[in-house]
Amino acid sequence: MHKPSLEVCLSPALLHLYDTNDAVVVIIDIFRATSTITAALHNGAKCVIPVASVAECITIGNSIPNSITAGERDGKIAEGLQHGNSPLEYPSHFIKDKTLVLTTTNGTRLLHMVQGASEIVIGSFLNLGALCGYLRSQNKKVLLGCASWKDKFNLEDTLFAGAVIHELQDAFEVGDDSARAAKHLYARTGGGNFIEFLKDSSHYKRLSAFGLQKEMEYCVIPDQHPVVPVLQGREIIVR
Amino acid sequence: MHKPSLEVCLSPALLHLYDTNDAVVVIIDIFRATSTITAALHNGAKCVIPVASVAECITIGNSIPNSITAGERDGKIAEGLQHGNSPLEYPSHFIKDKTLVLTTTNGTRLLHMVQGASEIVIGSFLNLGALCGYLRSQNKKVLLGCASWKDKFNLEDTLFAGAVIHELQDAFEVGDDSARAAKHLYARTGGGNFIEFLKDSSHYKRLSAFGLQKEMEYCVIPDQHPVVPVLQGREIIVR
Repeated sequence: MHKPSLEVCLSPALLHLYDTNDAVVVIIDIFRATSTITAALHNGAKCVIPVASVAECITIGNSIPNSITAGERDGKIAEGLQHGNSPLEYPSHFIKDKTLVLTTTNGTRLLHMVQGASEIVIGSFLNLGALCGYLRSQNKKVLLGCASWKDKFNLEDTLFAGAVIHELQDAFEVGDDSARAAKHLYARTGGGNFIEFLKDSSHYKRLSAFGLQKEMEYCVIPDQHPVVPVLQGREIIVR
Repeated sequence: MHKPSLEVCLSPALLHLYDTNDAVVVIIDIFRATSTITAALHNGAKCVIPVASVAECITIGNSIPNSITAGERDGKIAEGLQHGNSPLEYPSHFIKDKTLVLTTTNGTRLLHMVQGASEIVIGSFLNLGALCGYLRSQNKKVLLGCASWKDKFNLEDTLFAGAVIHELQDAFEVGDDSARAAKHLYARTGGGNFIEFLKDSSHYKRLSAFGLQKEMEYCVIPDQHPVVPVLQGREIIVR
């Protein structure tokens, strides 16, 4: 049987090298946009609206009843917004039935760049198993899209891509060297203790300076929030 | 003491993210341009002139006495040229004192894209030790530039970057996540048996179909040709 391909785009700046037509594209922004989106939706948020700018976040927030505006710049809640960009900020009793309007830079940009995809879904360690089960059930080619950091390769998004490939390599054709490299990075962790592996990364160091260690530790715990968020129009909802 | 930074650019499409001003930039195209350039120069070639197109290769070849035009397309000597792109084709008795005009796609393109560098040098497993000794002696920031394959990340160039980082990490600040990932890939090989590691790569598979296994095996043997090729004007010469 012909297996669908599984590839990894390491940066939005490389997205043009991939054919996303009819692919399931997984947006990955481990620290922390896609982790936060997954947690908020699993905890009962009605939907998440990802936006690029703080101004847009405020405008859309004002137009939707029972909404929360959220986003950070340099590790602090951005001026004019109400909440930050951590999965721990959105427990069920707070976020249930609300719309989360979230501004993030890297993840949102990649999400809006993808053209012609069959579906755009959200990936994080928090929904690793649910995501892999879903991708397996679709039997379509998959592109794992790392949001990266201002187009620069990052270790945490690629490590997560490696975790997905590790789970799915029996059912997919590992299609490019990026995917093979991601698999090797995952193997370097021995399949666990991700945070130790990531303590040497640029993003861990940057966010640690803002005191966000606990948030990052949470972001790499697999399967805390087993949902598959999917983009429909401008909204991300639970599939 | 402040250590200079050591970074890895995984693809020419990411080069704009790096500041190459006053950096020593290492061009890496393991299969096979930078391996061939290193071997030819160590074997006594007067210089190598890298060019982008077959037509340019012929024109320049015609204008230089005692020159050889070389380059491949799809694993065969390109029409109108005299020789191919393998380090094994340029033994001393053949190439000594000749000018090698070499057309390659990925390596040449990256080389011509680099702006403002202190120096542009050529890296391959064949000159790994000599290159690392030279970089160490310069005490300047270094960018390891992977030529990649039509802008797509490749395993062999990144593995070589990892080998360089492994050698130099005591003297340099490992500056970005690309460099950290390259180091992890190198560690996956246990520091040797590179060809086994690369048998799973896209490029190995592609070139194997043209019967070039022996050439690729040669390209990953460290220190067969301990010279440091450097770009001066349009020529690559031994430093």
